Amino acid sequence: MKIATVKGTNDYLPKEAAMRDYLQSVILETYRASGFQRIMTPAIEDAENLDKSEGGENLNLIFKILKRGEKLDKALEEGKYNELSDMGLRYDLTLPLTRYYAANKDKLILPMKCIQIDKVYRAERPQKGRLREFVQCDIDILGTSSCYAEVELIDVTARALMAIGIGEFRIRVNDRRILKNVLSNLGFAAEELDSVCITFDKLDKVGVEGVKAELTEKGFAAESIEKLADMLANMPFTLESIRPYCTDEETLANLTAIMDTVKQIAGGKYEIVFDISLVRGQGYYTGTIFEAESTKFRGAIGGGGRYDNLIGKFLNESVPAVGFSIGFERIFSILMESGMEIPDARKRIALLYDPQEFQSVYAKAEELRKEYDVALFERPKKTGKFLNRLEEQGYHGFLMAGKDEISWF
Amino acid sequence: MKIATVKGTNDYLPKEAAMRDYLQSVILETYRASGFQRIMTPAIEDAENLDKSEGGENLNLIFKILKRGEKLDKALEEGKYNELSDMGLRYDLTLPLTRYYAANKDKLILPMKCIQIDKVYRAERPQKGRLREFVQCDIDILGTSSCYAEVELIDVTARALMAIGIGEFRIRVNDRRILKNVLSNLGFAAEELDSVCITFDKLDKVGVEGVKAELTEKGFAAESIEKLADMLANMPFTLESIRPYCTDEETLANLTAIMDTVKQIAGGKYEIVFDISLVRGQGYYTGTIFEAESTKFRGAIGGGGRYDNLIGKFLNESVPAVGFSIGFERIFSILMESGMEIPDARKRIALLYDPQEFQSVYAKAEELRKEYDVALFERPKKTGKFLNRLEEQGYHGFLMAGKDEISWF
Repeated sequence: MKIATVKGTNDYLPKEAAMRDYLQSVILETYRASGFQRIMTPAIEDAENLDKSEGGENLNLIFKILKRGEKLDKALEEGKYNELSDMGLRYDLTLPLTRYYAANKDKLILPMKCIQIDKVYRAERPQKGRLREFVQCDIDILGTSSCYAEVELIDVTARALMAIGIGEFRIRVNDRRILKNVLSNLGFAAEELDSVCITFDKLDKVGVEGVKAELTEKGFAAESIEKLADMLANMPFTLESIRPYCTDEETLANLTAIMDTVKQIAGGKYEIVFDISLVRGQGYYTGTIFEAESTKFRGAIGGGGRYDNLIGKFLNESVPAVGFSIGFERIFSILMESGMEIPDARKRIALLYDPQEFQSVYAKAEELRKEYDVALFERPKKTGKFLNRLEEQGYHGFLMAGKDEISWF
Repeated sequence: MKIATVKGTNDYLPKEAAMRDYLQSVILETYRASGFQRIMTPAIEDAENLDKSEGGENLNLIFKILKRGEKLDKALEEGKYNELSDMGLRYDLTLPLTRYYAANKDKLILPMKCIQIDKVYRAERPQKGRLREFVQCDIDILGTSSCYAEVELIDVTARALMAIGIGEFRIRVNDRRILKNVLSNLGFAAEELDSVCITFDKLDKVGVEGVKAELTEKGFAAESIEKLADMLANMPFTLESIRPYCTDEETLANLTAIMDTVKQIAGGKYEIVFDISLVRGQGYYTGTIFEAESTKFRGAIGGGGRYDNLIGKFLNESVPAVGFSIGFERIFSILMESGMEIPDARKRIALLYDPQEFQSVYAKAEELRKEYDVALFERPKKTGKFLNRLEEQGYHGFLMAGKDEISWF
């Protein structure tokens, strides 16, 4: 039998599991205090829901669950190889949330402010940091177009990041409508915009020349590409300096209101900046998009945006929605590498006994458990070696049965 | 798109999710205080590991994950329909735990005392109470044959059940070796014992006559069946009254020690009884088996046992192991139906504001969040109706922006 975990998934040792629990509980408490309420959805979703969900590139990464019994036999007999599966594992928490809202809206407070902390699955190519099973921590507000939904999501997420102790970070924001308006004003056609955005998203990796080359290869008009390159020479833009390129006054005003309000309530604890080059991969975003990035560690530690059309796929009504997801796995690996200890954790001690002492020692352990986590171990032959092992594994001390004083490592 | 969850899976409303979080945290805290440490394993396992795992009937209930790309094409082209999948979703937490132990034993304290609280998946036929995605809460002790491992698992699980507030319960215990010894002494052949046990497991559902009928149908010797029926007329047995039928003195002495010690440390807070009719379905149990049952609500609320051979499938060494799993979903549904409220939960209030007040109200909310969970809502047109809705959904009060006094429902 195979001892290793399947590719792209992890076992977590006690110390790692404790850190994951700690981080999730800090995030959950911050979100709850801010009036968000946790909901839970299944990891398995209907295949059709997943396939039609506008998840962008993630649609290619869905783990599909094989049909069973007669249903499977039938699909195989008839050679319908695209019907071997009718369910799959969710690739994010947004699609399940929109289905959830459609299924349960009569039982919910609207606007709905919800928390999701759960596992998602993607058949990513294995490479450092890309897991196939990972945790997402999302908050979402459904049922309001108010710009204060964005403000709350950004500030509440920022407070969770501060509570975790991830260090300095900044929030980058953009709006898909601003980006598309700018590109459109540069001469790209409406039907070309999505494709241009996909290339534009690679700006920080491939640079202006790389973007030009890919857009040229895609066959877009040389004139528009040149105009874009000229514009990019003026990076970075502010919401003021982008105005010559953008005619969507309403969206500019909305994003200005969001940024101004966030700045005021943040009181300098974190930074929020406009970034025209922020695109975000998901196909379903329709307006504001944002990303949290550590100023010290590379890569995003959170991201989100507005997805006003997704719920309409389930219900024949338009429901505005916006969400922010913390990059849990990135944060977990940053904090583990930094050697962070869990603050205020209960101390863990071992109580060593000989078999005949079990009952008396059990009562003693119960008493100590009011204050400490207490593990019982039969006294091993090589006690010294065992004690070293305990210390190595993060135990804080030990007590020999019959003794009164805990020996601290 | 499909609004309902896939068959056998649930969405959880905020109130339900809060209860699930509460129950899991009480269980986790009880386990941690008792010196067990949480570990985590992936929900996806290698198909071969799952298939060869002695999971009994559960092996027929594994959700398999479809291969992708070239691998899938190859299996289909070659008509190797039993090779369409090389991974599956775990059906319990025990198989992943044994793989985990094999993979990580050099990094663990031995004996290993671990907690697992996580989702498992089974393609159960949909019927009341049988979910396809559900949570298990397990504690296990790996690396010791000591009867105090059983004692600790039983008492720590019992304390978790008491902490949850599930009401009166009792622990039934048996040992597969006692059961098999008794059956063997009645004349059943060694190779028949597993099959006899499967039938015997149905005793409480089909009665003595039902067991006789099924054993007869299976073609076992009439004389042995009669002897078994005669014996069953003397049900229930104690560890004393089973002695005339059992010649395995060592196992009897071991189970007596377990029961006596548990009784003493339990101090009458819960009952522990011997039950020769307890079998438990899993194929991997080798010795002691136990089940927790509520005296008020039907069905087991926990179960477990010793599985000394499972880890040997990964490592060429025998590692004794024993575990106890809380029936989380059963307990969750009992407590939800009982209308239980989460003890000492923070109160949740709504703060209603008009858009121009957002900033001042946000500062006020931050202040209140030290004591309450505070959700911000723009004041809706039909305020009265909205307030009724909040009360209905479990909010404890509300505050209008600009006012100082919280109005409690």
